[in-house]
Amino acid sequence: MAQNGPVVSVRWQDETLFILDQTRLPNEIIIEKQAEVQQIWESIKKLKVRGAPAIGVAGAYGLVVAMKEKTDLGRDAFIAELQRQADYLDSARPTAVNLSWALEKVCARAVSSRAGNGLELYAEIRNEAEAIHHEDIQLCRSIGEHGVSLIREGCGILTHCNAGRLATSEYGTATAPMYLAHKRGINFRVYSDESRPLLQGSRLTAWELLQAGIDVTTITDNMAAYVMSQGLVDLVIVGTDRVAANGDVANKIGTLGVAVLADYFNIPFYVACPASTVDLATGSGDDIVIEERDPGEVTMIGTQRIAPEGVKVKNPAFDVTPHELVSGFITDRGIIYPPYNAKLRDTFGAE
Amino acid sequence: MAQNGPVVSVRWQDETLFILDQTRLPNEIIIEKQAEVQQIWESIKKLKVRGAPAIGVAGAYGLVVAMKEKTDLGRDAFIAELQRQADYLDSARPTAVNLSWALEKVCARAVSSRAGNGLELYAEIRNEAEAIHHEDIQLCRSIGEHGVSLIREGCGILTHCNAGRLATSEYGTATAPMYLAHKRGINFRVYSDESRPLLQGSRLTAWELLQAGIDVTTITDNMAAYVMSQGLVDLVIVGTDRVAANGDVANKIGTLGVAVLADYFNIPFYVACPASTVDLATGSGDDIVIEERDPGEVTMIGTQRIAPEGVKVKNPAFDVTPHELVSGFITDRGIIYPPYNAKLRDTFGAE
Repeated sequence: MAQNGPVVSVRWQDETLFILDQTRLPNEIIIEKQAEVQQIWESIKKLKVRGAPAIGVAGAYGLVVAMKEKTDLGRDAFIAELQRQADYLDSARPTAVNLSWALEKVCARAVSSRAGNGLELYAEIRNEAEAIHHEDIQLCRSIGEHGVSLIREGCGILTHCNAGRLATSEYGTATAPMYLAHKRGINFRVYSDESRPLLQGSRLTAWELLQAGIDVTTITDNMAAYVMSQGLVDLVIVGTDRVAANGDVANKIGTLGVAVLADYFNIPFYVACPASTVDLATGSGDDIVIEERDPGEVTMIGTQRIAPEGVKVKNPAFDVTPHELVSGFITDRGIIYPPYNAKLRDTFGAE
Repeated sequence: MAQNGPVVSVRWQDETLFILDQTRLPNEIIIEKQAEVQQIWESIKKLKVRGAPAIGVAGAYGLVVAMKEKTDLGRDAFIAELQRQADYLDSARPTAVNLSWALEKVCARAVSSRAGNGLELYAEIRNEAEAIHHEDIQLCRSIGEHGVSLIREGCGILTHCNAGRLATSEYGTATAPMYLAHKRGINFRVYSDESRPLLQGSRLTAWELLQAGIDVTTITDNMAAYVMSQGLVDLVIVGTDRVAANGDVANKIGTLGVAVLADYFNIPFYVACPASTVDLATGSGDDIVIEERDPGEVTMIGTQRIAPEGVKVKNPAFDVTPHELVSGFITDRGIIYPPYNAKLRDTFGAE
C-alpha cells in the first residue's frame, strides 16, 4: 500500500486497519489490510503485531472492523454483539493486560454513550479507538519531548531490545527521544544490542531506526562492553516492562548487564517509561517473579540447532535492574531523578 | 571408530591420525580417519580442527602421515620432502603461529637427528609429533592441577567461549580445572555463555562438558548478569589469546563484559593461560590491535538473516580486559596473583 510517513505497526486510514507483519521483519515489509475480525485475531495471536501499546490499539480497531457491517442493529443488540467480539479478540492474547484494557474501554464507551442505534454506536466506538490510538502517540511523543534534551550533537546511544515504534503506535518509548532528536537535525549514533534469544534488537530496533534514516549499528549483546570501553557510548536508553515503587526496573533479559556496564564506564543509564508501567503496588524488584520461557529459544535459531541435545538451559524472560544503577526515568510527565521512592509516588500516585 | 576415554579433537592411535569434525558439532559427532596429507590440510583449512594448540598437534601428525610412505628415501631426499610437506601444511592457516611453530619443530628434529635413512627419520618425526602432543596434554593438565583448588563442592562456575578440550589435545585451559575437579568427584555447576557471534560456548563448550558428564547450563551472553545476580556463580574462569606484560587480557569478544559483571557482583575472575600466551613484549592492552571480522557473522546465523540489509555492524574478534579486573592467572606454573607486572616477568621472563 502507498503511505505517507514512517512504516508503523498499526495504521488506521480511510476507515481501514493495516498491520505491519513483524514476524517477517527484517527480511520482508508486508503491510496487511485487516478486512475481517478473524484476521485481526490471527495477527495478534501470531505476534504479527506485538508490544503492549500496539496490541491494545490493534484490538480497539479490531472491534471497529468487527462492527462495521453491524450498524443496522439496534442499541441493545449492537452492544451485545460488541461484547461478544471483545471477548473473542481478548482470547488471542489472554495475558496481555493492554489488550483487555483497550477492549473494555471501547465497550464502556458504547455502554455509557447516549447513542440510540447501531450507526451512532459505531461512530462512538470508532472515535474511542482513534482516541486510544492518539493517546498512545501523544504519550510516546511526551516521553520524546522530555528525553530529547539528553541527546547531544555527535553523541552515541546504546539501547537494548525493542522499546521502539514497532511496539507502540508511533515514536516508541526508548526510541522516542531519538526520533525527535533526528527530526530536529541532531546527529547521533545508536548501538542496538541484538537482544538474544529473540533478537528484537537486530530484527526490529535496527530495522526501524534504519528505516527512519538514523545512524544505527547492530552489535551482539556481548559487544556492549567493547563499544563502551572505546568511548563510543555517551548514553544508554532502554524501555521497561515494570517499574517498582523503589525504582527497580524489570525489563528484557540483558538489561541488568547493560546497566552494570554503564555504571562501570560512567555512562548515564536512563529508562523510558510511560505511566502505565509504574507499579507502585510492587515495593521492589524482589517482589517481581521472573518467568522462564521455552528453552528452544536458546538452543535453536529458526530451524537450526545451536546447542547440544540434552543440555540444561536457562531462559529468563527478563531481569531486574536495581534502582541505584538507574540515572533517571524518562516519563511522559518529565524526567525523574533519585530518590525514586518519593518522586515516583508523587508523580504517579493516586491523584 | 571405537575408542576409550573422552571424544578429543585430535587422536593418534595405532600410527593413525583421527580428527573430530568440529564444524558438525553439536549436531553430529563425526571422527574422521586422516589417510592422506591433503585431507589433513583440508581439515585445518575448513576448521574441522580449531584452537591454536590443537592445530599445532594436528599439523605435526600431518607431517608424520605425509612421510609414512616415504621411508625408502635417503636422508637428504627425506628431509627435502619433509620441508616441502611442512610448507604445504602451513599454507592451510598461514596466520596460525602454533601451526608453523609445530611444523618447524618437527622439521628441526629431523635435521638435528643423526638418523641416516628414511626409516630412522620417520621414527624421529613421529616421536617429535608425539612429544608435542604429550607436552600440550601435560601443560593443560598442569593448569588443571593448579586451578582445581579453586573449585569447591557445590560451586557454580561461569565460562565464556571455548578454551576447552576441543581447542587443545585434552583438558583444555579454562576447562582443565573443571575436568580434574570432576574426576576427583567434586560436584559443581558450569554456566556456559553461548558466545555470539560464532556460538563456541553453546556449540562446543556445552557439548564437551556434557559429554564428560559435567553439570552444564547454556545461557545467552546477556543472561550472565542474571545468573550472577541470583547467586548462582561463585567463580569465573576464561581462557585468553594474549596476556600483556601488565596483566591486561585479550580474549574472545564478551570477556570484558563478564569481567565487569564479576567485579560488580564480587565474584573472582580467573584467566587460564599457558606460558605461550604471555607476551611480555606487549606492555599493556592498549598496544593490542583488535581485528574486525566479517559483518556477516553478526547479521546471519547459518543461512538465516537476522538483521536488516544495509545496517552498520561492529564485529570485533576480541576485547581487552584490564588487569585490575583479573583476580588471578591460572598458569601451568601455578596461580599468579597481583601485582602482575613483576610476577609475570618473574615467572615467564627469559630464564
